[in-house]
Amino acid sequence: MRTLHHWPLDPWSRQARIALAEKQLAFELRFERPWDAPEDLLALNPAGLTPVLVDETPQGRVVAVEARAILEYLEELKPEPSLLPGGPAERAEARRLCHWFDRKFDAEVNAYLLFEKLEKRLQGLGAPDMEAIRAGRDYLRWHLDYVTGLLDQRDGLAGPRYSLADIAASAHLSCIDYLGDVPWDEFPAAKAWYERIKCRPSFRAILEDRLPGMAPARWYADLDF
Amino acid sequence: MRTLHHWPLDPWSRQARIALAEKQLAFELRFERPWDAPEDLLALNPAGLTPVLVDETPQGRVVAVEARAILEYLEELKPEPSLLPGGPAERAEARRLCHWFDRKFDAEVNAYLLFEKLEKRLQGLGAPDMEAIRAGRDYLRWHLDYVTGLLDQRDGLAGPRYSLADIAASAHLSCIDYLGDVPWDEFPAAKAWYERIKCRPSFRAILEDRLPGMAPARWYADLDF
Repeated sequence: MRTLHHWPLDPWSRQARIALAEKQLAFELRFERPWDAPEDLLALNPAGLTPVLVDETPQGRVVAVEARAILEYLEELKPEPSLLPGGPAERAEARRLCHWFDRKFDAEVNAYLLFEKLEKRLQGLGAPDMEAIRAGRDYLRWHLDYVTGLLDQRDGLAGPRYSLADIAASAHLSCIDYLGDVPWDEFPAAKAWYERIKCRPSFRAILEDRLPGMAPARWYADLDF
Repeated sequence: MRTLHHWPLDPWSRQARIALAEKQLAFELRFERPWDAPEDLLALNPAGLTPVLVDETPQGRVVAVEARAILEYLEELKPEPSLLPGGPAERAEARRLCHWFDRKFDAEVNAYLLFEKLEKRLQGLGAPDMEAIRAGRDYLRWHLDYVTGLLDQRDGLAGPRYSLADIAASAHLSCIDYLGDVPWDEFPAAKAWYERIKCRPSFRAILEDRLPGMAPARWYADLDF
């Protein structure tokens, strides 16, 4: 049995869910609220964060913690379909973009928009700071511009093959899109890329996520938005 | 030719240097001051951060950006000696610990001690905040306690084989040790582990690093400290 401990609007949990679906590996989801420091989660990951994948295999139990380790584990467990490009330069580029979204996009966009609009509310940390939201939206435009530049240079985000880079980028952007903050119409190349991602079967469960009392943007689940 | 763009007291640059030395791969070092946003670095990594490895191979140029991508690239380029344990559970555990140091130790220790004592000075950002330094030292003790717990459960940090986890942990801790802030004598198991790391030939260059005008702690380079 394979269980993914996740929180639906956590961009790293989403990366693990998408990769499991791309690999067509069966798994169960276990919903966690990391900010409540649940004991089952802390026992698996002392850092107290999602995602954690627990895989009970015939050879023993594997506990893979955080998106990068989970995705590398899945790639080794089931190499096909590969989520890494074939050549070393392209593989390095895909991993660079994962890091870009996991660190830079996280610090410049999630830390403002996800934190102010979602995490503060769920954790009872007070009203959102509108200045911070404006800063996050400015950074988001800059990131969409960067994505546009990549798509302009090449066929696909990190190259023609769907890869870890597409998973990382779409997982982060989809959380912001849930909040309704992505100005897709100003960035048609990024929008066309995200439309292709949304049509993949691996993305279906992501588009079905709903937080109680907090509806997504009306176009969130539309394949043609 | 293989060139690593680095900054000596950057824990991620150190991870790349140690891994290259462990793999016995020849490389040249190129010193960067990332906070000056040098053009050569920005052209290779638009995020403007070290480390960046540029490998001119007969099959073409590979640009690997940031420690995790560089170390995965080196593992694929030269699988032996492997820097990952053999089994999937142990590999996941080694990668978990990389993430632990790269994110949690970074946010709780580097963000206070490296930033206040080193980065502020180099970048002319004013005097260190003593409250922040005290907070960083408290967190550091907590991390050394965590490392002690790991070493108590098993033979080695992520298991008996030297791995990515040892590289990540020693790269981060060695930067703090340069500043003289690691209370080694209070944590004998962690100290014994670090003594073994210091004796490895791959660590020699790390112990030779000297920042102009800023001498390391007097025990920094001692193998028997």
